[in-house]
Amino acid sequence: MKVNLNNQSNDPQSKGVEILSIGSELLLGNIVNTNAQWISEELCSLGLNHFRQSTVGDNSKRISTVVKEISLRSNLLITTGGLGPTPDDLTTESIAKSFNASLYKRQYLWDEIKQKLSYSNENLDNSILKKQCFFPNNAQIINNPRGTAPGMIWEPIKGFTILTFPGVPSELKTMWQETAFEYIKKNFSDDHIFFSNTLKFAGISESALSEKITNLLKLKNPTVAPYANLGEVKLRITAKAKTKLKAKNIIKPIKEELQKGFSKFIFGENEDNLSSILIKELLKRKQSLVFAESCTGGLLSSSITSIAGSSKVFKGSIISYSDEIKKSLLNIPGELIKKNGAVSKEVAEIMAINVRKKLNSDWAISISGIAGPNGGSKYKPVGLVYISISGPNDHITNIKKNFGSTRNRLEIQTLSVNECLNSLRLILLSNSK
Amino acid sequence: MKVNLNNQSNDPQSKGVEILSIGSELLLGNIVNTNAQWISEELCSLGLNHFRQSTVGDNSKRISTVVKEISLRSNLLITTGGLGPTPDDLTTESIAKSFNASLYKRQYLWDEIKQKLSYSNENLDNSILKKQCFFPNNAQIINNPRGTAPGMIWEPIKGFTILTFPGVPSELKTMWQETAFEYIKKNFSDDHIFFSNTLKFAGISESALSEKITNLLKLKNPTVAPYANLGEVKLRITAKAKTKLKAKNIIKPIKEELQKGFSKFIFGENEDNLSSILIKELLKRKQSLVFAESCTGGLLSSSITSIAGSSKVFKGSIISYSDEIKKSLLNIPGELIKKNGAVSKEVAEIMAINVRKKLNSDWAISISGIAGPNGGSKYKPVGLVYISISGPNDHITNIKKNFGSTRNRLEIQTLSVNECLNSLRLILLSNSK
Repeated sequence: MKVNLNNQSNDPQSKGVEILSIGSELLLGNIVNTNAQWISEELCSLGLNHFRQSTVGDNSKRISTVVKEISLRSNLLITTGGLGPTPDDLTTESIAKSFNASLYKRQYLWDEIKQKLSYSNENLDNSILKKQCFFPNNAQIINNPRGTAPGMIWEPIKGFTILTFPGVPSELKTMWQETAFEYIKKNFSDDHIFFSNTLKFAGISESALSEKITNLLKLKNPTVAPYANLGEVKLRITAKAKTKLKAKNIIKPIKEELQKGFSKFIFGENEDNLSSILIKELLKRKQSLVFAESCTGGLLSSSITSIAGSSKVFKGSIISYSDEIKKSLLNIPGELIKKNGAVSKEVAEIMAINVRKKLNSDWAISISGIAGPNGGSKYKPVGLVYISISGPNDHITNIKKNFGSTRNRLEIQTLSVNECLNSLRLILLSNSK
Repeated sequence: MKVNLNNQSNDPQSKGVEILSIGSELLLGNIVNTNAQWISEELCSLGLNHFRQSTVGDNSKRISTVVKEISLRSNLLITTGGLGPTPDDLTTESIAKSFNASLYKRQYLWDEIKQKLSYSNENLDNSILKKQCFFPNNAQIINNPRGTAPGMIWEPIKGFTILTFPGVPSELKTMWQETAFEYIKKNFSDDHIFFSNTLKFAGISESALSEKITNLLKLKNPTVAPYANLGEVKLRITAKAKTKLKAKNIIKPIKEELQKGFSKFIFGENEDNLSSILIKELLKRKQSLVFAESCTGGLLSSSITSIAGSSKVFKGSIISYSDEIKKSLLNIPGELIKKNGAVSKEVAEIMAINVRKKLNSDWAISISGIAGPNGGSKYKPVGLVYISISGPNDHITNIKKNFGSTRNRLEIQTLSVNECLNSLRLILLSNSK
């Protein structure tokens, strides 16, 4: 039965969608509920009327009670967690209990699970994994390509449908994208779609950006909403329309206005990040990249190599965490370190020049700083970072940053990495003008 | 009225505590609900029976309804969000509506707010901030030293108390620590405390571990609960007792039983991770560590350097992402790469031996593999990883792993890093016997 759960729906059957997160680790505060946020975003992109979320522990009676309650006030329920093999994974059986339904084994699922685990030699006949093959008779299975626990789509009573997902975020996301999204779109959304385009900014704070676009933040269609992560600011432009093309046309003038006003700060869209954009820019120019990292200790390299295909531009790095390796591998004169300290403009500059030469690359970035929490001094406080960029035609750019001593080690390392990536991006863009 | 909400309380009045998060930004997925996690941890440390959480948007009717529902099944409700001055901040008035109560202005609060804002020149007489001074007559105020919106402690009906907090995490935390914690401890907890000890496992899956300790998972005091992340499994042992010492004594025999049965798999406790433990073991032996990374592209180095003080054992790495750098910096013979491929036992082994020599270190780990999603073949599929560990006295260990082609790039890189760290840890431990 199709029910329209869109925000502005006039469907008389329309009551809405809820999320139920299941897991005692949530109630104990062991983990943050990132799944609820991710699903909320997805429901939002479908424009569904999502008005309530609940969390309960691994307790069969409480799960049954809350599911029963939700069935009386909503049309659609998304659950996460409790699909695993251990005794405290109780979701499927507790939901079935809410509606006095029985569970039946699906042999083909058991065969699939055994196949997935074929590399192990364990005898699986008495395995607790078997539990994951039991479902109500009329439930449809949501295949789990990333793990052993499948989910289900089940309509236990007319007008109320439940979709279950594991709590492991990567499994939930894959199952959602491969199966659930289309199902929900087809059965619970009107013929409008919500389409979003996210612009990504670097080098400007969320509040500075927001103050400059107060008029845009008040718009109704499209809506414009800012979000901020460490060292990255996003603007999400969302339009409601009959087709994706029409939505894109609603978004277009706002996007163009922003691109005009903030050209220096906008580095990409949607799934782009600074690493992927830098790789793209270098690929265009058929240029290569290497690093000499000290205080970031591999995070800069790791950020670039997290992108598939990075090997086309990235050749490698020297992580010179000790002064000994700065001298032996990067040929930094001991005298220079003695005079200026390893955290200095002078040392960073020669690190960049030498690593570029040694690894035979078009571009090199070096970084030396104090990530803390110890090792700072009055003149060289925690958070002080020197970055140097060496490139073709004797190009050299030196950057000094102080990310502040209130930030922790990982924050200082992450902000340093973003600064490196964004600086080289800006150099490439200005060179090509 | 004192009600004892401790987990194992026999108080006939005891029903429990709930958290209600208020804010449309949560339902839209704009932000992650870190407040709920933080409060959960606090309630857990007080040993309170916290069994449910809810989230609703900035909608007066929905807030009233859910508060009413909670008042029928719980003794204590903690709310966050909706205390600000804007029209969509509706918490206090909606809660009052649930119990047909009126709000009254507290002049002294208004004076305080004006004082807090004295640096501004605005005329405040018609300010929307005034709203923040209105409370039910018999509510007690929770002072907000970090912002303008106070919270309240209110018992609208016998046996049901509400504490309200703003959604801004820093304000909530300060108000909790300065006022709420003591109030809740005094009025809702018995004189027992809950104390937890978490054991961390590597090299064993959550299900394999759970199957071997089904008897422990059924215990009541202490309780034993398993959790799993990518490549890491945890067991949390929690005891209830009059003092921390007594709780530790309850935990002790279970912990010892686990340590005896799983000595090979337990690598640490609580905040430990594989990097911090490996650094500790190397420090004990005054030994140094270097890496030659290919497919992990810096993630192994970055994992070690995320730990403060890692510079005492970690000297540096060569990230040899291209074959060119494998040859030039690590002196891998071109013939060897040609014959076996860069992803091979032979190349990994020489990478480890040569980087150890070149960077003058006691231990070296090398890693070469196929992180995907592309680059795999029938004989060398995505997920295939060769690890080699070179150490004193011509020690060499070669490891071949296949992490499976269904895993994504970051998962394969992360599992590879964990395998490296755990393997060297086990070698150090077995050498010292």
